[in-house]
Amino acid sequence: MTKKYNFCAGPAMLPEAVMQQAQSEFCNWQGSGISVMEVSHRSPEYIELAKQAEADLRELLAVPDNYKVLFCQGGGRGQFAAVPLNLLGDKLDADYILTGQWSKSAVVEAKKHARIQETDIMTTTADGKITIKPCDEWPVNSGAAYLHYCPNETIEGIEIFDVPSTGIVPLVADMSSTILSRPLDISKFGLIYAGAQKNIGPSGLAIVIVRDDLVGKARKAIPSIFDYEIQANADSMYNTPPTYSWYLAGLVFKWLLAQGGIAEVEKKNIAKAELLYNAIDASSFYSNNVDKSVRSRMNIPFTLADDSLNDTFLSESKAAGLLTLKGHKLVGGMRASIYNAMPIEGVQALVDFMAAFEKKYA
Amino acid sequence: MTKKYNFCAGPAMLPEAVMQQAQSEFCNWQGSGISVMEVSHRSPEYIELAKQAEADLRELLAVPDNYKVLFCQGGGRGQFAAVPLNLLGDKLDADYILTGQWSKSAVVEAKKHARIQETDIMTTTADGKITIKPCDEWPVNSGAAYLHYCPNETIEGIEIFDVPSTGIVPLVADMSSTILSRPLDISKFGLIYAGAQKNIGPSGLAIVIVRDDLVGKARKAIPSIFDYEIQANADSMYNTPPTYSWYLAGLVFKWLLAQGGIAEVEKKNIAKAELLYNAIDASSFYSNNVDKSVRSRMNIPFTLADDSLNDTFLSESKAAGLLTLKGHKLVGGMRASIYNAMPIEGVQALVDFMAAFEKKYA
Repeated sequence: MTKKYNFCAGPAMLPEAVMQQAQSEFCNWQGSGISVMEVSHRSPEYIELAKQAEADLRELLAVPDNYKVLFCQGGGRGQFAAVPLNLLGDKLDADYILTGQWSKSAVVEAKKHARIQETDIMTTTADGKITIKPCDEWPVNSGAAYLHYCPNETIEGIEIFDVPSTGIVPLVADMSSTILSRPLDISKFGLIYAGAQKNIGPSGLAIVIVRDDLVGKARKAIPSIFDYEIQANADSMYNTPPTYSWYLAGLVFKWLLAQGGIAEVEKKNIAKAELLYNAIDASSFYSNNVDKSVRSRMNIPFTLADDSLNDTFLSESKAAGLLTLKGHKLVGGMRASIYNAMPIEGVQALVDFMAAFEKKYA
Repeated sequence: MTKKYNFCAGPAMLPEAVMQQAQSEFCNWQGSGISVMEVSHRSPEYIELAKQAEADLRELLAVPDNYKVLFCQGGGRGQFAAVPLNLLGDKLDADYILTGQWSKSAVVEAKKHARIQETDIMTTTADGKITIKPCDEWPVNSGAAYLHYCPNETIEGIEIFDVPSTGIVPLVADMSSTILSRPLDISKFGLIYAGAQKNIGPSGLAIVIVRDDLVGKARKAIPSIFDYEIQANADSMYNTPPTYSWYLAGLVFKWLLAQGGIAEVEKKNIAKAELLYNAIDASSFYSNNVDKSVRSRMNIPFTLADDSLNDTFLSESKAAGLLTLKGHKLVGGMRASIYNAMPIEGVQALVDFMAAFEKKYA
């Protein structure tokens, strides 16, 4: 069979080594004779797995001791609700920075609970590229309970590498599609969260990293499973956690550590992104309309000069083993999501295919 | 290796045939060259899987057309919050029937949103056994938005086989540990829900079956992922669903259909439960303190005449391949959870072990 490379934005491909290990021990975890998904989350063996996964994630991201790490259900959209329900406390206001579809969706949910000051910072450069205003120009309302932004917009292919300074206002970030792709200074954030299905593991798990002083202020009507204090006090096992997803996330964390940690992973991600962007920029057949300063390393949208070739591009790339390259319906064209699990050989295969396709049809 | 039988209450054992199929296609689903957990939930292939799983569940439970079937995140405890947030509408009151720990936990969550009339119907028989008052003696408040009960209390080992008549008040049931174990007349219920990790699949998935007229009344502040109307309109894909759990649930549904459906499955469950209860009742060394009329077929707690032998029983049973027999800490003793996936050979192995243990230590 042709080697398959899967460019899906999420649920995304997982590391090949992780998948092979998971398959080999699928029905017999650690010699127990049963699957890890059949093990009680209250058993010493599973609790050891869970604690190790948290410890490895803390090591990877250098999470300071005054932050809780929570393994939750409900995905990123669950956190769109959980964040205001947990962080507003007795305040009524929160700031949301708009950089694309995901940050806009977060606002819709937050408006159920708070008065939102939303600021659209998307703009265009002199040559018509999409960009965003620098972080130091973002407005901060000093009375806000927090400021929320999305450092990587999966659909538009925008990534924000600077971290805004928000003074005493806690900074909250939806890191779903950038977490673990590059080093982070967690201490600059009050809270970060991420749906797992891009850079962590399968869908159905979300990670929350939250500073201690922001825990314990939840509104009374919050569903208990979303209450950070309840989950922190129960080691994320107030309700039965998604145990198999947690296990796979733990394998992914070990795989990242084995590569030398996030600084090494970032180097690979930079090389992968440069390979693809350089191929796009060197061609007049392909284009990407995001300014270089805010181009995502994880999600790379591009268009063909002739839209009528889109279906041909998709069918021929699929036949070549390059899967799920169709762009999001809101922006059209193509999109290659190249998270940590995508090896550079996959990006090279895509670049080679794109060159051959251009030669054939341009 | 000794054959292992896993009596965990949840996450519970899954059918051996399902696990073997899942392992064999773990990295190459339907010849795609990738795992089903790496497939986009928006792809035609995954949508076909999702629709087939729903269709199979509808067939198994004979779900009427005027009911929605939803695949959700957040487990049973998530639904403890979702039910009042969706069903109260402009009412303030709901009725909760108490039959054990799980129905009590549901009340704690519901009180965040409604005035709860809670009625404890647990009682004891003349000979000191735990029982519950008959359904026709349960009080129904005609002004309540719904009446909630739990037909199978996993911890106490109580099962309620009759379905109460609540007139115009919608009946809501937490079926987490009894769903798919016996036929149900869904039309008697307004809503049933179940965490998957007992009789459906791995943890991290919950199933909701809700009558059409109860959808669309959610409170404005409900987290959108819990809003039945939003999820129904999005075919349970408003947010990225737990795709791998959904896939495994689908395999379990196919496995149940291949056995001839739920009526056939019930016969096996009756035989399994009788085998174990008969062994307990025939012995003066083991005992179960639940009245026969309300004994659970799924979760069978029992105690040893001499508590000081508990640790020995647990270590020797584990060595014999009989796993996770420790009772819940709230009731102590032992518990054998024998959901659909447990073959009668597993129950026979437990009964044989219990007889040998009694002979050795009594």
